Amino acid sequence: MGVLRIGHASLKVMDMAAAVKHYENVLGLKTTMQDKAGNVYLKCWDEWDKYSLILTPSDQAGMNHVAFKVERDSDLDDLKMKIEDWGVKTTLLPEGTLPSTGRMLQFRLPSGHEMRLYAMKEHVGTEVGSVNPDPWPDGLKGAGAHWLDHVLLMCEMNPPEGVNTVADNTRFFIEALDFFLTEQVLVGPSGDIQAATWLSCTNTPHDIAFVGGPKSGLHHISYFLDSWHDVLKSADVMAKNKVRIDVAPTRHGITRGETIYFFDPSGNRNETFAGLGYLAQRDRPVTTWTEDQLGSGIFYHTGELVSSFTEVYT
Amino acid sequence: MGVLRIGHASLKVMDMAAAVKHYENVLGLKTTMQDKAGNVYLKCWDEWDKYSLILTPSDQAGMNHVAFKVERDSDLDDLKMKIEDWGVKTTLLPEGTLPSTGRMLQFRLPSGHEMRLYAMKEHVGTEVGSVNPDPWPDGLKGAGAHWLDHVLLMCEMNPPEGVNTVADNTRFFIEALDFFLTEQVLVGPSGDIQAATWLSCTNTPHDIAFVGGPKSGLHHISYFLDSWHDVLKSADVMAKNKVRIDVAPTRHGITRGETIYFFDPSGNRNETFAGLGYLAQRDRPVTTWTEDQLGSGIFYHTGELVSSFTEVYT
Amino acid sequence: MGVLRIGHASLKVMDMAAAVKHYENVLGLKTTMQDKAGNVYLKCWDEWDKYSLILTPSDQAGMNHVAFKVERDSDLDDLKMKIEDWGVKTTLLPEGTLPSTGRMLQFRLPSGHEMRLYAMKEHVGTEVGSVNPDPWPDGLKGAGAHWLDHVLLMCEMNPPEGVNTVADNTRFFIEALDFFLTEQVLVGPSGDIQAATWLSCTNTPHDIAFVGGPKSGLHHISYFLDSWHDVLKSADVMAKNKVRIDVAPTRHGITRGETIYFFDPSGNRNETFAGLGYLAQRDRPVTTWTEDQLGSGIFYHTGELVSSFTEVYT
Amino acid sequence: MGVLRIGHASLKVMDMAAAVKHYENVLGLKTTMQDKAGNVYLKCWDEWDKYSLILTPSDQAGMNHVAFKVERDSDLDDLKMKIEDWGVKTTLLPEGTLPSTGRMLQFRLPSGHEMRLYAMKEHVGTEVGSVNPDPWPDGLKGAGAHWLDHVLLMCEMNPPEGVNTVADNTRFFIEALDFFLTEQVLVGPSGDIQAATWLSCTNTPHDIAFVGGPKSGLHHISYFLDSWHDVLKSADVMAKNKVRIDVAPTRHGITRGETIYFFDPSGNRNETFAGLGYLAQRDRPVTTWTEDQLGSGIFYHTGELVSSFTEVYT
Repeated sequence: MGVLRIGHASLKVMDMAAAVKHYENVLGLKTTMQDKAGNVYLKCWDEWDKYSLILTPSDQAGMNHVAFKVERDSDLDDLKMKIEDWGVKTTLLPEGTLPSTGRMLQFRLPSGHEMRLYAMKEHVGTEVGSVNPDPWPDGLKGAGAHWLDHVLLMCEMNPPEGVNTVADNTRFFIEALDFFLTEQVLVGPSGDIQAATWLSCTNTPHDIAFVGGPKSGLHHISYFLDSWHDVLKSADVMAKNKVRIDVAPTRHGITRGETIYFFDPSGNRNETFAGLGYLAQRDRPVTTWTEDQLGSGIFYHTGELVSSFTEVYT
Repeated sequence: MGVLRIGHASLKVMDMAAAVKHYENVLGLKTTMQDKAGNVYLKCWDEWDKYSLILTPSDQAGMNHVAFKVERDSDLDDLKMKIEDWGVKTTLLPEGTLPSTGRMLQFRLPSGHEMRLYAMKEHVGTEVGSVNPDPWPDGLKGAGAHWLDHVLLMCEMNPPEGVNTVADNTRFFIEALDFFLTEQVLVGPSGDIQAATWLSCTNTPHDIAFVGGPKSGLHHISYFLDSWHDVLKSADVMAKNKVRIDVAPTRHGITRGETIYFFDPSGNRNETFAGLGYLAQRDRPVTTWTEDQLGSGIFYHTGELVSSFTEVYT
Repeated sequence: MGVLRIGHASLKVMDMAAAVKHYENVLGLKTTMQDKAGNVYLKCWDEWDKYSLILTPSDQAGMNHVAFKVERDSDLDDLKMKIEDWGVKTTLLPEGTLPSTGRMLQFRLPSGHEMRLYAMKEHVGTEVGSVNPDPWPDGLKGAGAHWLDHVLLMCEMNPPEGVNTVADNTRFFIEALDFFLTEQVLVGPSGDIQAATWLSCTNTPHDIAFVGGPKSGLHHISYFLDSWHDVLKSADVMAKNKVRIDVAPTRHGITRGETIYFFDPSGNRNETFAGLGYLAQRDRPVTTWTEDQLGSGIFYHTGELVSSFTEVYT
Repeated sequence: MGVLRIGHASLKVMDMAAAVKHYENVLGLKTTMQDKAGNVYLKCWDEWDKYSLILTPSDQAGMNHVAFKVERDSDLDDLKMKIEDWGVKTTLLPEGTLPSTGRMLQFRLPSGHEMRLYAMKEHVGTEVGSVNPDPWPDGLKGAGAHWLDHVLLMCEMNPPEGVNTVADNTRFFIEALDFFLTEQVLVGPSGDIQAATWLSCTNTPHDIAFVGGPKSGLHHISYFLDSWHDVLKSADVMAKNKVRIDVAPTRHGITRGETIYFFDPSGNRNETFAGLGYLAQRDRPVTTWTEDQLGSGIFYHTGELVSSFTEVYT
């Protein structure tokens, strides 16, 4: 049937010990395995597959790839055809390329980001189990993030004449991967240039998002919290752990999400956000933000664009 | 592609003025139309189709039918075949059978409840619009419910030898309508009798649920709120409006939802509940509640079954 | 200047190990000392004096005494005179009668409850300290209660002709101890019998409360939480710890407090409650609840009196 | 017995219509009277005296005076003596100098700010009344602020040799008005210069606060909200009303308060804040913030001082 959800992100970190400490103590993930190459695999308490975050040692920050899970192994073959028909080359990586994970369909988005699809990852269960479960487990650390929710990718864009890989990625996700558009920022003299888009393959306001910039990169990976109260708690946790906060608690106009942005020790931007926002649906009208109201779209309360927010990424 | 979501519920009410006042002032819906037969149509502020609730005059309470929306008109033809192949008879009601609504596929669930599928309903938009929208509209009344979230149907069940229309409905929704099971209560000496099930066609923990009882009927219709704080506010609103509350604020073990149960003036049970709970997925392990922990499943805090809760319905 | 606040409660418990586990794991108190007689002393993380709860081994539940702290040692002499002038006998207990505590003025309320006043208790500081403190400490357990907030005492009352020790206690606290009345329940044919009163010596809606009943006893001791969200968390903690919950999360009309009632393993009723409610002031009009609205006063949402709530106490 | 609480602030505004609209629609106050001179008087729904805010027409922003209420009229005579003995001149303004208000004791703080004390103001009651009251009234507008909570005054300070009116004001409030110190910022080479202080005459963390700066003025007036959730709502309300926000939702280290800073149309800074924080007491250890941690004291999450926050005031 197609893509189920975001499965994991693979991030480059420069100090592995500091990174693991950050994702464990601040976000509340748990390390589920390490491999011989020094990569560390972590998951959130409310996820049931073996990992949703891979940290790889590097001399710089950034994202290696983002992976989405599909429902059936045969979906990989179907999607391979759809993706190649769309004009994107793919490679099938054999089972075991990533530990505890089946074969993966690898390709590059129009924006240049590496993406992978897979159908199988070792099932380890959530921390509350599936028989008479408590609503949350004992011994939560830090923000107690529920799950990896989405990534926002910065995409090379030089309107009006140059490339616009925001628009290209958006078409690709809709046409080849059957995502649907939930929100978009339209700019330019005619107000018809997609400068940012939010897309869903579930019923949440976004599973992936694209924002135009001078070069492609990772803007942030985002973790789900239950409530605005948990946003406050996570901000308190960051203060206690001397985490560098980029944007203190506020609400997005776009997605209605309640949010904090901050950085891991290598400089990869993280988000904790709360609130379903709304139930995204294929027949829900697409929300459009115009250039003059973009500030309110990003940071609803102040309505002011913070330059570092759009200019600093990895 | 199939069923998108719950579209509306049609309820019988004995005092129309009191009912409209209840759904407007307590839940916060708005009346969008009335017809010559005296039926009243209402919607929530965060819904974009013309109505999600039909109130019909009657001398008793209860549900006339529940309707789900499908993505494309042609899905109705596909689903007609799948449903009839499964063994359920269907009728195609012509466009206009319900106002502002396209043709509907009508059938009875194994439990006897009437269900309808439709692809088209007049689009009127949410109250915040879709260009640079605020996260919530001014002038909200009462609980300010976001949307009709689900219905819970009581289904005739006489285990071990008699009928179990909970199990029958469950198989029907999975096999014919492509829903997936998120949670279940298993009872009986071998712990293998489905006494209650929760099913999703989106990514929320339930779009419909079935609980076994001596006869089929409506247990409740449920409205979505943003947060536990809004649950408190809605309870305060009920107190101010002298609404009969069935179960004061608490948490369900099942779905993790934060909830209040109460009655409309005719005795139809309503629920306001908050919290996404978790992101339901087709590959998420099904949660099972055993008979001895059923109390905690229903009312997590006290763990006590309230007899009126399972015995009183319409 | 007089009475500062509630200082501690001394409770009888039948199973000390179970009681300590309850107050530590469910409420989040810490044991600060034990004495040779087997009494255990505990405090909340946000309190700075050595203990606010004394658990004493017994063959039944109930309260030994409640103690309030005064500002200066000389206040004890002034209050001794005021109290005896009012008609209540007092005893001065020497320093060390309770460990880490100065001399205490001991007396019986008109209702028969033992009360003590003291000016000195060993200062140990809050868990966050007083230099550049975090807003909350790491390693909180259970509900993470901030402080012992108040006690509610059941007072013998046989209107119209018999005793009314609610009214007697109320006059005593106002006239001899300089508390002020914040709320009252008036009953009886003329609506002039004080069946319950709430009194403050700070700016919170109550530091002590009295409710009339067939015999005097302890209704509950109450712990302060920050927010309605923390009330939910504390209810979840109770469910995990199989605590017997008396009344699940709701709001009081009286004091506006957000509350849960539950029992310690010996049957002493506890409350966790949240919300300042309002800023109590000596010039704020006294809130009066009439007999017909008493249900809403106690449990605002349902408006229904639960018989066990008023009949069961220790 | 002395000072009860803050009674009102008198502010200068440059556009009266815009100011009234702001305090009514954003904060939720109601206009209770206007006088012939064009002054407008407002109160919050949870206050019982006739007004807590006076808006006076002017060609600049700023505070005219802040007034505190004392318990008895005779307290004014007692306090007159104490204040003059301390070395501050006073004037007794006759009843009616301000409408609906008794005689006032007028004086200047060491920092130059005008302050007034009064014992009588017309009692009009809260909006929920005092017989069987609901916890909140219907028809709340904007943030629905409960009450004027405190003011923060900027006080001239030129350490090490020059004046330090923060310290002078602090001694005056403690010695002459019987307030107590809850928190302080200590700076300078020996860490013994009071650069900011928070003082209480109730049991809240502050009823007035002083921060040192190049000249005396008003930093902000602050309104109480119930919860962090209401802080979010108030920020949403500000966005809808295009209010200029100074600091979006965050937590103070000092007082633990959850806060937003914003400006009225004339540029007077307002705050909405939530959370009791802690129960201030005369025997609670004073919290001290050191110079190196001042950022965390002001804005706990980011730990960064925002220059405009300390430099811009009226």
